[in-house]
Amino acid sequence: MNEALVFDAYGTLFDVYSVAQRCDSFWPGKGAALSLAWRAKQLEYTWQRSLMRRYRPFSEVTREALAYACEALGLQLTATQMEALMGEYLMLATYPDVVAALNKMRNKKLAILSNGSPDMLEPLVKQSGLKFDAVLSVDELQIFKPAPQVYELAATRLKLSKEHIGFVSSNCWDALGAKSFGFSAYWINRAAAPVDRLGFRPDAILKTLGDLLEVLL
Amino acid sequence: MNEALVFDAYGTLFDVYSVAQRCDSFWPGKGAALSLAWRAKQLEYTWQRSLMRRYRPFSEVTREALAYACEALGLQLTATQMEALMGEYLMLATYPDVVAALNKMRNKKLAILSNGSPDMLEPLVKQSGLKFDAVLSVDELQIFKPAPQVYELAATRLKLSKEHIGFVSSNCWDALGAKSFGFSAYWINRAAAPVDRLGFRPDAILKTLGDLLEVLL
Repeated sequence: MNEALVFDAYGTLFDVYSVAQRCDSFWPGKGAALSLAWRAKQLEYTWQRSLMRRYRPFSEVTREALAYACEALGLQLTATQMEALMGEYLMLATYPDVVAALNKMRNKKLAILSNGSPDMLEPLVKQSGLKFDAVLSVDELQIFKPAPQVYELAATRLKLSKEHIGFVSSNCWDALGAKSFGFSAYWINRAAAPVDRLGFRPDAILKTLGDLLEVLL
Repeated sequence: MNEALVFDAYGTLFDVYSVAQRCDSFWPGKGAALSLAWRAKQLEYTWQRSLMRRYRPFSEVTREALAYACEALGLQLTATQMEALMGEYLMLATYPDVVAALNKMRNKKLAILSNGSPDMLEPLVKQSGLKFDAVLSVDELQIFKPAPQVYELAATRLKLSKEHIGFVSSNCWDALGAKSFGFSAYWINRAAAPVDRLGFRPDAILKTLGDLLEVLL
């Protein structure tokens, strides 16, 4: 029985589509390709820097990934464009089902556990108006997901044993990292992707956060 | 001054193009897309499993990545096709410039340092006829590149301090992992890609292994 639910932020609660739209406004017709390349490199750099033991905050990694992705696609990137795109991350919308679903889960502790550094995560959560018992960043650990100490941070801060925590992410590998650590894991498979082959299975695979309510009953 | 040169294997000494060709023979017109998706997932799984502390040998990770990539592209994969594709990895050709370049570097110790597990790496090197002072796999460390202990393994086995080792890879992040550890790093940029933004720069960026000879003089 889950006494707390811990949520990933980007792509799970917050819709990053507006970032792609802003990319497309700067480079018409290239927004989709750029935002995909940017996202892929952003994740790669989190994993590579973690393994290299060269952690840098997510805001910096995200800038570095954008610079790489623009160069790879032959797009000129000005400092103004960089700041505008980074600014989008501070005012992302929640997915349409998020507010109603969270409000029906308030019999449990609710938390965010994100790769986002506090300079990105705190303004975002504040402008959303969503209330959580804890908003946790990997930044204090200086390592990114899916390292087990990241998930352990949530258990420590919520003062719960891992068996009593459910973790919710739209990234399958993130859900499986949580599962490997010992949480229950719920994968919000918004993109209808295959299950990652990492030696674990999510406890449930759902299309929306609303569908999670039925699983939790 | 480098007393030893340590080479990555796949994509650096050995050309994986024949794997893409074999993919295309099974799924005509899809070989390029599949081999790209397979390679991307293979690397992701090495990083994710390393961070999760759930190491599995590269041969297993490579199979898991292929299964994922086929499902993502809607391609049926039989056990026979899986084994045929894995078999390709045991008989990859070297790039045209490899044999001549290595033969001109024999005043130094020469080694391979690879993510490949011994069941993949040893038959490959044997059939190539190439001679090395050491063929090293991450397998004994149970973690993948770019963790620093991987590069340290080469220094330990070659009995050289890291300042005297040059590392050569076609993967920029791998070269930068070696640089971060303390090796000189030479990036063979076969694909004309941008430099990765990981806080380090390669000591040289080259088009072929032959070009490395001039840098070393």
